[in-house]
Parts: sequence; C-alpha cells; structure tokens
Amino acid sequence: MTTALALLGAGLAAGFAAIGTGVGNGLVIAKTLEGMSRQPELSGQLRTTMFIGVGLIEAVPIIAIVISFMLMAK
Amino acid sequence: MTTALALLGAGLAAGFAAIGTGVGNGLVIAKTLEGMSRQPELSGQLRTTMFIGVGLIEAVPIIAIVISFMLMAK
Amino acid sequence: MTTALALLGAGLAAGFAAIGTGVGNGLVIAKTLEGMSRQPELSGQLRTTMFIGVGLIEAVPIIAIVISFMLMAK
Amino acid sequence: MTTALALLGAGLAAGFAAIGTGVGNGLVIAKTLEGMSRQPELSGQLRTTMFIGVGLIEAVPIIAIVISFMLMAK
Amino acid sequence: MTTALALLGAGLAAGFAAIGTGVGNGLVIAKTLEGMSRQPELSGQLRTTMFIGVGLIEAVPIIAIVISFMLMAK
Amino acid sequence: MTTALALLGAGLAAGFAAIGTGVGNGLVIAKTLEGMSRQPELSGQLRTTMFIGVGLIEAVPIIAIVISFMLMAK
Amino acid sequence: MTTALALLGAGLAAGFAAIGTGVGNGLVIAKTLEGMSRQPELSGQLRTTMFIGVGLIEAVPIIAIVISFMLMAK
Amino acid sequence: MTTALALLGAGLAAGFAAIGTGVGNGLVIAKTLEGMSRQPELSGQLRTTMFIGVGLIEAVPIIAIVISFMLMAK
Amino acid sequence: MTTALALLGAGLAAGFAAIGTGVGNGLVIAKTLEGMSRQPELSGQLRTTMFIGVGLIEAVPIIAIVISFMLMAK
Amino acid sequence: MTTALALLGAGLAAGFAAIGTGVGNGLVIAKTLEGMSRQPELSGQLRTTMFIGVGLIEAVPIIAIVISFMLMAK
Amino acid sequence: MTTALALLGAGLAAGFAAIGTGVGNGLVIAKTLEGMSRQPELSGQLRTTMFIGVGLIEAVPIIAIVISFMLMAK
Amino acid sequence: MTTALALLGAGLAAGFAAIGTGVGNGLVIAKTLEGMSRQPELSGQLRTTMFIGVGLIEAVPIIAIVISFMLMAK
Amino acid sequence: MTTALALLGAGLAAGFAAIGTGVGNGLVIAKTLEGMSRQPELSGQLRTTMFIGVGLIEAVPIIAIVISFMLMAK
Amino acid sequence: MTTALALLGAGLAAGFAAIGTGVGNGLVIAKTLEGMSRQPELSGQLRTTMFIGVGLIEAVPIIAIVISFMLMAK
Repeated sequence: MTTALALLGAGLAAGFAAIGTGVGNGLVIAKTLEGMSRQPELSGQLRTTMFIGVGLIEAVPIIAIVISFMLMAK
Repeated sequence: MTTALALLGAGLAAGFAAIGTGVGNGLVIAKTLEGMSRQPELSGQLRTTMFIGVGLIEAVPIIAIVISFMLMAK
Repeated sequence: MTTALALLGAGLAAGFAAIGTGVGNGLVIAKTLEGMSRQPELSGQLRTTMFIGVGLIEAVPIIAIVISFMLMAK
Repeated sequence: MTTALALLGAGLAAGFAAIGTGVGNGLVIAKTLEGMSRQPELSGQLRTTMFIGVGLIEAVPIIAIVISFMLMAK
Repeated sequence: MTTALALLGAGLAAGFAAIGTGVGNGLVIAKTLEGMSRQPELSGQLRTTMFIGVGLIEAVPIIAIVISFMLMAK
Repeated sequence: MTTALALLGAGLAAGFAAIGTGVGNGLVIAKTLEGMSRQPELSGQLRTTMFIGVGLIEAVPIIAIVISFMLMAK
Repeated sequence: MTTALALLGAGLAAGFAAIGTGVGNGLVIAKTLEGMSRQPELSGQLRTTMFIGVGLIEAVPIIAIVISFMLMAK
Repeated sequence: MTTALALLGAGLAAGFAAIGTGVGNGLVIAKTLEGMSRQPELSGQLRTTMFIGVGLIEAVPIIAIVISFMLMAK
Repeated sequence: MTTALALLGAGLAAGFAAIGTGVGNGLVIAKTLEGMSRQPELSGQLRTTMFIGVGLIEAVPIIAIVISFMLMAK
Repeated sequence: MTTALALLGAGLAAGFAAIGTGVGNGLVIAKTLEGMSRQPELSGQLRTTMFIGVGLIEAVPIIAIVISFMLMAK
Repeated sequence: MTTALALLGAGLAAGFAAIGTGVGNGLVIAKTLEGMSRQPELSGQLRTTMFIGVGLIEAVPIIAIVISFMLMAK
Repeated sequence: MTTALALLGAGLAAGFAAIGTGVGNGLVIAKTLEGMSRQPELSGQLRTTMFIGVGLIEAVPIIAIVISFMLMAK
Repeated sequence: MTTALALLGAGLAAGFAAIGTGVGNGLVIAKTLEGMSRQPELSGQLRTTMFIGVGLIEAVPIIAIVISFMLMAK
Repeated sequence: MTTALALLGAGLAAGFAAIGTGVGNGLVIAKTLEGMSRQPELSGQLRTTMFIGVGLIEAVPIIAIVISFMLMAK
C-alpha cells in the first residue's frame, strides 16, 4: 500500500506542475506578444524579460518534477 | 493494488498535461493570430516568438508525459 | 482490481484529452475566423498559422490518447 | 469488478467528449456566424474554415469515443 | 455489481451529453438570432449555417447517447 | 444493489437534463426578447427561429429523459 | 438499500430541476423587464413571448419532477 | 438505513430549492428595481410583471419542497 | 444511524438556505441602494418594492428552515 | 455515531451561515459606501436602508446559528 | 469517534468563518479606500460607516468561532 | 482515531485562514496602492486606514490559528 | 493512523499557504508595478508600502507553515 | 500506512506550490512586460521591482517544497 500512494502522489505532482507551468507561461508569453505587436522596436528587451520570467516561473514546477521522480524511486 | 494506483496516476498525469498544454498554447497562439491580423508586417517575428513560447510551455507537460510512461512501466 | 483501475484511468485520460483539445482549438480557430473577417487579404497567412497552432496543441493530447491505448492493453 | 469499472470509464469518456465537442464547436460556429453577419461577402471562405476547424476539433473526441467503445468491448 | 455501475455510467453519459448539447446549441442559436436582428436580409444564409452547426455539434453527443443505450443493454 | 444504482442514475440523468435545458433555452429566449425589443418588425421571424432552436436544443435532453425512464423500468 | 438510493435520487432530481428552472426563468424574465422599461409600447408582445419561453423552459424540469415522484413511488 | 437516506435527500432538495429561488428571484427583482429607477412612470406595469415572474419561478422549487415533505413522511 | 443522517441533513438545509438568502437579498438591496443614490425622490417607492422582493425571496428558505426543524424533531 | 454527525452538521451550518452573511453584507455595505461618496447629502437615508437590509439578510443565517446550537444540544 | 468528528467540525467552522470575514471585510474596506481617494473631505464619515459595516459583518463569523470553541469543549 | 482527525482539522483551519488572509489583505492593499498612485498627497491617511483594515481582517483568521493550536494540543 | 493524518494535514496546510501567498502577493506587487509605470516619481513610496503589505499578507501563512512543522513533529 | 499518507501529502504540497508560484509570478511578470511596453525608459526600475516581487512570492512555496522533502524523509 505504501508504494502505491507514493506513485499516485507522483502522478498528481507532475500533473499539477504541468497545469501551473501552462497557465503561468501562457500569461507571460501572451503579454510579450501583445507588447511586441504594439511596439516592435522593443522586441529584444521584451523577449529578454520573457526568458527571465519563464525561468523564474518554471523553477518551482521543476522541483515538483524532481519530487515526483523521487517519489517514484521510493 | 500497487500497480493499479500507479496506472491510475499515469492516466491522471497524462490528462492534466493535456489540459495544461491546451490552455497555455491556446492563449499564446490566439494572441499571435490577433497580433498578425493587426500588423501583418510583424508576422515573421511574432511567429518566431510563438514557437519559442510553445516550446517553453510544453517542456514541463512533456516531462509529465515521461513520468506517466515510467509509472506505466512499474 | 489491477486491470480495472487501469481501464478507469484510460477513460479519464481520453476524456481530459478531449476537453483540452476542444478548449484549445476552439480559442485558436475562433481567433482565426475573427481575424479573417476583419482583414480578408490575410486569410492564407492566418490559416497557415492556424494549422501550425492546431498541430502544436494536439501533440500532447494525442500522446495522452496513446497512453490511454497502452493502459487498455495492460 | 473489472468489467464494471471499465464500463463506468466508458460512460465518463463519452460524456467528457460530448462536453468538449459542444464547447469547442460552439465557440467556432458562433464566431463564424458573427463574422458572416458583419461581412456577408466572406461567407464562403468563413464557412470553409469553419468546416476545417470543426474537423480538427472533433478528431480527439472521436478517438475518445473509439476508446469508449473498446472499453465496452472488454 | 457489474451491471449496476454500467447503468450508473449510462445515466452519467446521457446527462453530460444533455449539458454539452444545451450549452453548445445555446451559443450558436443565440448568435444566429443576434445576427438576424442586426441584418434581417441575411436570415436565410444564417439559418442555413445554424442548421449545419447544430448538426455538427450534436454528432458526438448522439454517439454518447448510443453508448448510453449500449451500456443499458449490457 | 443493481436496481438501486440504476435508480440513482435515473435521477441524475433527469436532473442534468433539466439543468441543460434551462441554461440553453434561457440563452436563446433571452436573445429573442432582446432582438424583439430592438426591432419589433422582425418579431415573427425571430420567434419562428426561436421555436426551431428550442426544438433542436431539447432533442438530446428528451432522449436523456427517455433513458431515465428506461433505467427506472430496469 | 434499493429504496433508499431511489429516494436520494428523487431528492437530487427535484433539487437540480429547481436550480435549472430558477436560472433559466430568471434570465428570460429579467430580459423581458429590461425590454419593457426600454420600449413600453411592446409590453404585450414581450409578455406573450415570455409566457411561451417559460413554458418551453419548464417542460423538461417538470418531467424531472414526474420522475422524482415515480422514484418515490418505487 | 432506508429512512435515513430519504431524510438526507429531503434536506438536500429543500436546500437546493432555496438556492434556486434566491438566485432566480434576485435577478428578476433587481432588474425591476433598475427599471423603476430609470422610468418611474412604468412602476405599476413592471411590478405586475415581476409578480407574475416570481410566481413562475417559484413553481418548481415549491414542488421540490412538497417532495421534500413527502420524503420526510416516508 | 437514521437520526444521525437526518441531523446532518438539517444542518445542510439550514446552511444552504443561509447562502441563498444572503446572495438573493444582497443583489436586491444593493440595487435598491444604487437606485436611491441616483434618484433620491423615488426612495419610498424603491424601498416598498425592496420589502416585497425580500419577502418573496425569503419564502422558500424559511420553508427550508422549517424542514430543518422538522428533521431535527425526528 | 449519532451525536458525532450532528456535531459535524452544526459546524457546517455555522460555517455556511458565516460565508452567506459575509458575502451578502459585503455587497450591501460596499454599495452604501459607493453611494455615500457620490452623494454625501443622502448619507442618512442610505445608512438607514443599509441597516434595514443588513437586518433582513442576517435573519436566516441567525436561525441557522440557532439550529447549530440546537444540534449541539442533542 | 464522537469527539473526533466534533473536532473536525470545529476546524471547518473556524476556517469557513475566516474565509467569510476575509472576503466580506475585503470588499467593504477596499470600497472605503476608493471613496476616500476620490473625495478626501468625506473620510471621517466613510470610516465611521466602515467600522459599523465591519462590526455587522463580523457578528455571525464570531458566533461561528464561539460554536467552534464549544465543539472543542465537547 | 480521535487525535488524528483533530490534527487534520488543525491543518485545514490553518490553511483556510491563510487563504482568507491572502485574498482579503490583497484586495485592501492593492486598492491602497491604486489610491496612492492617483493622489499622492493622501498617502498618510490611506495608509492609516489600510493598517486599520488589515487589523480588522486578520482578527478572525488569527482566532482560527489559535483554534488550530488548541486542536493540536488535544 | 494518528501520525499519518497529521502528516497529510501538514502537507495540505503548507500547500494552501503557498496558494494564499501567491495570489495575495501577486495582486499587491502587480498593482505596485502598474502604479510605478504610471507615476515614476512615486516609486519609493509605493515600494515601501509594497514591502509593508507583503509583510502583513505573509504573517498568517507563515504561522500556517509553523503549524505544518509542528504537525510533522508529532 | 503512515508513510504512505505522508508521501501523498508530499506530492500534494509540491503540486499546490507549483500552482501558486505559476499564478503569482505570471501576474507580476505580465504586468512588468505591460509596463515596459508602455514606458521603455523605466525598464530597469520595473525589472528590479519584478525580481524583488518574485523573490517575495517564492518564499512560502519554497518552504512548502522543503516541507515536501521532509515528508519524504519520514
């Protein structure tokens, strides 16, 4: 029984991480595209900030992925 | 019982990954199309950013898919 | 009991994939039609981007469908 | 017990597929009608795109329907 | 127990199909009526498209209804 | 136990059908009334379309009602 | 046990029917009142359409009520 | 056990009926007050329609209340 | 066990009645205050209608309260 | 077991009453403050109506509180 | 078992009371701050009404807190 | 079993209190910042009201925290 | 069993605290950035208020974190 | 059983932390990009505030991640 619930937890953690990344990145990249179509001369700066933002958003979900792998290794 | 819950977890992880990808990509590509119909001369730049964004969004769900396969291999 | 939960997981994965595809594609194609009715001369370009977007969105749900088939084969 | 949960999964997969198709197609066809009432001279083009879009949206739910039939055949 | 869960699944599939049809058709027909009250001279064309759209939307729910009947026949 | 879950399923199917009909018809008839108060000379045409739309929306819920009766007859 | 679940199903069907009627009728009658306060000379026509619409909306919930009574008679 | 679930169903039916009435009547009466503060000379007509609407909305919840009493009498 | 579920049902019915009254009355009284601050000379008429509306909204929740008392008396 | 479920019901009734009061009163008092900041000379009248409204809203939740006390006294 | 469910009920009642207070007070105080930044000369009057409103909102949640303490004392 | 449910209740009470505080304070402080950026000369007064509001909002959640500690001490 | 539910409660408390902090801080810092891009000369003052607000919001979630640690130490 | 629920709690805590970070950071970074595309000369200041805000938001989720690791170490 012990391993089974850990495996279920691994699946849930990975799934929620996927939802979190999808929503967060979706908001940021959509705003970047909106800004670029308004002021094309700022494209480089906006894209740089977008990469930083995506990196910051994906930090915690990736740790959740790591936890999911560790739960599977139990 | 152990394998059964792992298989249920595999199904849930794949399903949530599909929802996350759908919502996130939907937001980004819809904004790209809106930007292209406003300023057609920026199409190339917007489409490039769209591909980068889709790639960043799909990173975590694809790992969730990998986890789902690993749970099935248990 | 093992097979039963896997079959339930197969049904859920397929169902969530269907919801994700429906919402994501619905957003993208609706925006394409809105753009086409505003600027008819961009129809070709918008439709091309729409096909690329639909392809990118359907990548993960189709893998979820594959997982669903694999869970049924257990 | 095995067959019972598979049958329940079949019902859920078919039901979620129906919801996904309803929402996705509803968005697309509603936008088509809005575009046609604004610019009647684009009706043919919009309706063609609508058929393509409906076809793309219904791809995954129909596979879910197939999975539902396969779960019933277990 | 087997038959009982199949009957419960039949009820759920039929219920979700009813919700999906209600929402999808509601959106499409409401937009048709809005378009007709704006441009009465397009009534015929809009109503034709409405019938096609309703047909496309109801395809999957009706298969869900069929699945529901098949689950009852188990 | 078998009959009991079928009866519960009958109640749920009838209830969801009632919700679906309420929401769908509510949207359509509200739009009809809005159109009639804007352009009174189109009343006949709008009301005709409303009756067709209500008929199309109620098709699937009424089959769900039939399924509910059949589940009660088990 | 059989009768008990049927009685629970009766209560749920009646409750969902009450929610469906409340939401649907609320939308229709509110729009009627809004139309009447804009164009008082159309009051008769709007009220007639309102009665027809309420009748159409309440058709399925009332059958759900009938099903609820039949479930209680089991 | 039989009586217990019937009593739980009675409570749920009464509760859902209360929610349905609250939402539906709230929408109608709020619109009446908005119309009266815009066009005070229509107060009588609006209030008459409001009473009719409230009567129509409360028809099904009151039957749900009756069902709730009958479930208690079991 | 019988009395216990009846008491739980009593608590749920009272709680849902409280939510329904809160939302419905909140909408009506808020609109009354908005109307009074726009047209102070209509205060009497609006407040009269508000009292009627509150009375109509609270009819069904108070019956739910009565049902809750009756369930406690079981 | 009997007393335990009654105590759980008491907690739920009190909690839902607290949510209902919070939402309903929040709407009413917020609108009062908005009206007062628009027309300061109506402050007295608005505040009087606010007290009446708060009294009417809190009637049913307070009965739910009473029911909660009675359930604890079981 | 009896005491355990009472303690769980105590936690839930306290938690829901905290959510209710947070939402209700949040709405009222936010509107007060908005009114003060529009018309600074009404600050005293608005703040007085805010205190009354907060007092009225917190009445029922505090009784829920009392019930929570009483459930813990069981 | 008794202590276990009390500990679960403690965790839930603390969690809901954290959500309630986050939402409520978020609304109030966001409005304060909006007011300050519109009228910088009112900063002192707005910040004073903000502190009072935060204090009032946090009263009930902190009691919920206290209840959570007491449940842990059981 | 006792320790297990406490550990589950610890996880839930920490998770809800993370959601509460994310939403609350997100609202406040987003408004700060909006205010700074409108009136750059107020940056210092807005940032100071932002730090105070973040501190106030994080007070209760951090106590929830403490409770989570204490539950783990049981 | 003890370890199993702790592992499930670890998965849930990590998942909720990922959702919280995604939503919170998404709001903040989106607003930063919006501000930068409006006033490019403030980019440095906005980006600095963005980093501070992201740091403040991620404080509690990272503690939740720590708790998740500790629950796995049990």
